Amino acid sequence: MLKKILVANRGEIAVRIIRACKELGAETVAVYSEIDKDSLHVHLADEAICIGPTISSKSYLNISNIISAAKITKAEGIHPGYGFLSENTEFALMCEIHGIKLIGPKEEHIRKMGNKSEARRTMIEAGVPVVPGSEYATNKANEAMQIAKEIGFPVMIKAASGGGGRGMRLVYKKEDFISMFNMAKAESAAAFNDDSMYIEKYIEEPRHIEFQILADERGNVIHLGERDCSLQRRNQKVLEEAPCTVISNSMRKEMGEMAIKAAKAVNYTSAGTVEFLLDKHGNYYFIEMNTRIQVEHPITELITGIDLIKEQIKIASGKELGFTQEDVEINGHAIECRINAEDINNNFAPSPGTIKDYLVPGGNGIRIDTHIYSGYKIPSTYDSMIGKLIAWGRNRQEAICRLQRALDELIITGIKTNIDFHSEILNNKKFLENQINTSFINKEMMK
Amino acid sequence: MLKKILVANRGEIAVRIIRACKELGAETVAVYSEIDKDSLHVHLADEAICIGPTISSKSYLNISNIISAAKITKAEGIHPGYGFLSENTEFALMCEIHGIKLIGPKEEHIRKMGNKSEARRTMIEAGVPVVPGSEYATNKANEAMQIAKEIGFPVMIKAASGGGGRGMRLVYKKEDFISMFNMAKAESAAAFNDDSMYIEKYIEEPRHIEFQILADERGNVIHLGERDCSLQRRNQKVLEEAPCTVISNSMRKEMGEMAIKAAKAVNYTSAGTVEFLLDKHGNYYFIEMNTRIQVEHPITELITGIDLIKEQIKIASGKELGFTQEDVEINGHAIECRINAEDINNNFAPSPGTIKDYLVPGGNGIRIDTHIYSGYKIPSTYDSMIGKLIAWGRNRQEAICRLQRALDELIITGIKTNIDFHSEILNNKKFLENQINTSFINKEMMK
Repeated sequence: MLKKILVANRGEIAVRIIRACKELGAETVAVYSEIDKDSLHVHLADEAICIGPTISSKSYLNISNIISAAKITKAEGIHPGYGFLSENTEFALMCEIHGIKLIGPKEEHIRKMGNKSEARRTMIEAGVPVVPGSEYATNKANEAMQIAKEIGFPVMIKAASGGGGRGMRLVYKKEDFISMFNMAKAESAAAFNDDSMYIEKYIEEPRHIEFQILADERGNVIHLGERDCSLQRRNQKVLEEAPCTVISNSMRKEMGEMAIKAAKAVNYTSAGTVEFLLDKHGNYYFIEMNTRIQVEHPITELITGIDLIKEQIKIASGKELGFTQEDVEINGHAIECRINAEDINNNFAPSPGTIKDYLVPGGNGIRIDTHIYSGYKIPSTYDSMIGKLIAWGRNRQEAICRLQRALDELIITGIKTNIDFHSEILNNKKFLENQINTSFINKEMMK
Repeated sequence: MLKKILVANRGEIAVRIIRACKELGAETVAVYSEIDKDSLHVHLADEAICIGPTISSKSYLNISNIISAAKITKAEGIHPGYGFLSENTEFALMCEIHGIKLIGPKEEHIRKMGNKSEARRTMIEAGVPVVPGSEYATNKANEAMQIAKEIGFPVMIKAASGGGGRGMRLVYKKEDFISMFNMAKAESAAAFNDDSMYIEKYIEEPRHIEFQILADERGNVIHLGERDCSLQRRNQKVLEEAPCTVISNSMRKEMGEMAIKAAKAVNYTSAGTVEFLLDKHGNYYFIEMNTRIQVEHPITELITGIDLIKEQIKIASGKELGFTQEDVEINGHAIECRINAEDINNNFAPSPGTIKDYLVPGGNGIRIDTHIYSGYKIPSTYDSMIGKLIAWGRNRQEAICRLQRALDELIITGIKTNIDFHSEILNNKKFLENQINTSFINKEMMK
């Protein structure tokens, strides 16, 4: 087992990782930027090293400072958490060069899955369904029309060189296709000096369903079921739940096997997440693989009893997975709320500041992962997420009721938070009926 | 379902019950003594009523004030928690007379199980093993010797009118019996003016094993496995765990069936606990049934996923149990530490006062049930328990490591607590090897 681990992150995930290390008996090293010197992760770790000024690029993204901190403290492994350097191939390489075990996937996994078109090709080869679309870009309307007919309407026309929505058109009917294609093509030519276009199936009101993967270094790969992360605002997840109650056991088995196939296609190791879009008809399409631990990992822990961070550390220590796919049982339902320091009445603008009163809910089925405390000053520099409130219940309804009463108990003063926004979601009729998709927040909550 | 519930208690259990009510959508009424007006249970409840001055006999034990509070607020049910009026037959009767549903067993259950000799007779009739002993008191040495030989040494000689250890003798060998009996008899005659004696088998170094029972009002009775509560100091439980890892599945089944038999013998309803002594040879003996929810109920909740307080409320509402014995699965291991405001270096004297810093541990597998917060003033009037720290793990080892790291994180300043005492227990070699019994605290921890 790794005896000493440096945690190359801050906030709740740094605290989370330190806790796992302590439970495994590993020594811990925290790193921190100047503004984070009084952070909880600094207090909880056995040692702490300042790695630079407040700005991330000079501290939490500063590869050489972090490697130096690991060398100085003789840390055998580094856990990168999520964000920052967690999916940085250069960092992964530097760890390898310096003989430090990165607690996460290898450089090649990050690279292969990070390149979207390479990942897509790999999945097609492996037999994992991807969003249907043209293999190559074209500027010929008739050829594009042919592709559109093959994959079926509605389709999205996308500029090969596009971005920011320019050169994009959503087409529902084939009668409209040629004229829309020509408009998009003209727009793209003008904007990007490139008129080649991709055609892609447009998945209407999909759910975002992701499968948690664990893979050891001996070729064992298992999945721990799915999470439904459809509730997103500007592509940021807001509230996640597991399992997805509209997925049947046979569907779970099939999608889980696809997720394992996806991981095996790149000989993946450590924890990872295979993301799918699930349409109204039960079709699912690979969209990407996240090669790191994710913010929402606790809901999987609560329904499986498996500690994902500890598993990552064991895998990085060369250990074989201690359980098989058959051993994994889904038990009950879990929902996570991301608590953000933000002003929901002012377009969700960040609301940094000093926390005055802080009363944390407790009792049956409640888990809180946070780094805040009364008197803690939330800096304006980093992400606005200040914690995660997670509820477990025997079923979705119990988890919702429990989360609601915990949200009611939670007191954070001195800053603005999105606690009330979460309460609104939990009281939404469509949410209660589990009629959600990736448009839910926009359509239901932003009215 | 009961729509409005009065919680006739204070502290963590009042908070616990209010949470369950909220999750079930029931309105809540808190009652409080004068000194408790700023307590958390008062803040969390929908309504709160002062029921008298600080001293328990005039507030939390004041039956007429509590009944009046329920009538005034139109509460349909009363949950008594543990302690105070929870096993008071007069209170149970008064609730019945006033048409208020007591969320707990009926008056007759409390009465039948509260009377030790009646409970013993009932168990013998039902075929539940009790600690072997004389059926009737005697003052004849030879008759007593005959009984002692039948039940086997070691035996305890007990004065029928005894108390406080007087007139008691522990006898290991039959050669010593007659002289010891005569000494005990003389002592008893002098102290209590009664020389009649009971002979009882002395169970050496037993474990305290208790089974959680749930019984609805339609005759369904199930058990939720056992708790090992061997770690006691002066008959007060200190740390409890579930399941007991020295009990095999077949043993669990057998003892569980005995516990159900015990409950059925009195047509028990609501949650209850059947307590056994388990000796080194695997023999078990009924000692008593607790006709209330217990302090240590959360560990059973964590390994079964069943919310005991909610089940009590559902049962009191006339609902049928939503699961059968076969549905109950034991999942993982849970340990609870009772956090007390006491000075472990001064003979565990209570340490009331105002809490200054309070930092609560969180993360995976940690549950906290408490009523304290930063600035809260612990009164000297009531019990010194200020909260319960509970850890769940996939197995006993993980639960121990998790509890240890949570104890390390827990900060409570301004008063003295037994946090360090719990850490010492968790680091004790015999505890780690699960070699515990009811003498453990005295023999191992008081050296």
